[in-house]
Amino acid sequence: MTTKKRPSYSDLLHASRTIAEDIALSELSPDSVLHKAITYHFNTPGSEARAALCISSSLALGLAVESAVRLAAAVETLHNASLIQDDLQDQDDVRRGHPAVWKKFGKDTAINATDLLIASSFALVSSVGSTNTHRLVASMTRAIAQTLQGQARDLNTNRVPNIDDAIAVAKEKSGPLFSLSLELPLVLSGHLYFVGAAREAGAAFGIGYQIFDDINDCARDREAGSLSNMALLIETSKSSQFLAIDSAEDLAHYFLDQAASNASALPNNSGAMLADKCVELLSELDREAA
Amino acid sequence: MTTKKRPSYSDLLHASRTIAEDIALSELSPDSVLHKAITYHFNTPGSEARAALCISSSLALGLAVESAVRLAAAVETLHNASLIQDDLQDQDDVRRGHPAVWKKFGKDTAINATDLLIASSFALVSSVGSTNTHRLVASMTRAIAQTLQGQARDLNTNRVPNIDDAIAVAKEKSGPLFSLSLELPLVLSGHLYFVGAAREAGAAFGIGYQIFDDINDCARDREAGSLSNMALLIETSKSSQFLAIDSAEDLAHYFLDQAASNASALPNNSGAMLADKCVELLSELDREAA
Repeated sequence: MTTKKRPSYSDLLHASRTIAEDIALSELSPDSVLHKAITYHFNTPGSEARAALCISSSLALGLAVESAVRLAAAVETLHNASLIQDDLQDQDDVRRGHPAVWKKFGKDTAINATDLLIASSFALVSSVGSTNTHRLVASMTRAIAQTLQGQARDLNTNRVPNIDDAIAVAKEKSGPLFSLSLELPLVLSGHLYFVGAAREAGAAFGIGYQIFDDINDCARDREAGSLSNMALLIETSKSSQFLAIDSAEDLAHYFLDQAASNASALPNNSGAMLADKCVELLSELDREAA
Repeated sequence: MTTKKRPSYSDLLHASRTIAEDIALSELSPDSVLHKAITYHFNTPGSEARAALCISSSLALGLAVESAVRLAAAVETLHNASLIQDDLQDQDDVRRGHPAVWKKFGKDTAINATDLLIASSFALVSSVGSTNTHRLVASMTRAIAQTLQGQARDLNTNRVPNIDDAIAVAKEKSGPLFSLSLELPLVLSGHLYFVGAAREAGAAFGIGYQIFDDINDCARDREAGSLSNMALLIETSKSSQFLAIDSAEDLAHYFLDQAASNASALPNNSGAMLADKCVELLSELDREAA
């Protein structure tokens, strides 16, 4: 008997990407524009940060590799759906160095592709074949509703947002899918008690990561006159519920600390990858400040 | 002990509508634009033909009333999602006598509402709490993919379509949700063998019903110069795989007969309501022709 080596992260991410694409395309004619658009988008995968988090958490909780890969594919598929739709709604022409789906295939195809990817994400999560499927589906639905509400808030917010608006948007738009990466493995493994902490961790990380990003983009956004950069908003906001914190770096610290502490409270060290990511971002911030 | 009266169809449709709306709104803030848009759309329910079919089929197959109502809510929610999106993509201003969602709340909100309703439909179907949930989800995903492919075909079809194109569009755009109304109860009750017949019945009904509708709209569409009316297309099409049939009435007969015969083959008379509907439409056609 040969011993089976545990597959590497990159193998698992690859498997996850493959199954996500297979499920999304499975009911389409290869010559349909929808098939072409989805194949095109999947061709440039991006960082797959949410899939990696989900795989890491799943394996820590003792889930089967096959389940880990499917949950990760579901979260990453939802993320891809949100990117295609965000690009359309924000009129962003470029995604991952290539023309965005709506730019290349038209608005209607982008809308249809988003719908199909949302449906696929449910097919993926239910293909795990668990008696907890209804709970996995409920978690997905909640994350989608929150993300959409965040997107709606973002699109409808004042032309000159304040920092509290921006935090609310980041929490709703970016938080839910990070949360879901931790939440689905917890639900599938029956650790329902910890779902709240997973959501807190994801929400805080979504905000903290956005501020971190905005600090790095500060100079460029200042030049471009971008009104939504959170680091710039802190300089100009007159009032905030986080008034005691008066620099973007402090605010990033606040949320990333919160994310790390919630992630660290998860069972079997299943939030370790998120907590590590927080520490990494925090030390990068400190290096830049030094 | 009091005897419990079996609830009427109208009670069951009401229950189905209520749970569909509750689930769609459950994760939204009441002051969000998404909440307002979905409440607005649900305010004018339409015919609920798919929900009625699904309830009838579910009860014939011996499913619990609660399950029947949830499956029906899932199918009707998908139908509502497709209407909101169709109106946006086809730039139709009016739905059920009121401004369409995109017209009243903007395009982005219509897009977001569609996403949320798709997600809700999965939450509904999985809330039935069956070990067959993954199969229900797979049926839903398939129906969504086909509907989207039909919509894409419709949007990308030649400016002057021929009758075969129009049949293909009607089959993919209208068929899958009629099929799903029969298919979900069959899957939930374990009658997987009959899923093929349910799909055939739904597809044929989708086409037949569209032709029936177009025959009734013929005069209006001729005046408006509408190019997609199937009854007009039959007059003008030069070639068709259904060449032997040279009137719209014959073509409607062909598909409605096919739908009725497939529906009648379903177990426990679970396709009876669809078969009856076919007979009703056929005799209306005959009356008009007489």
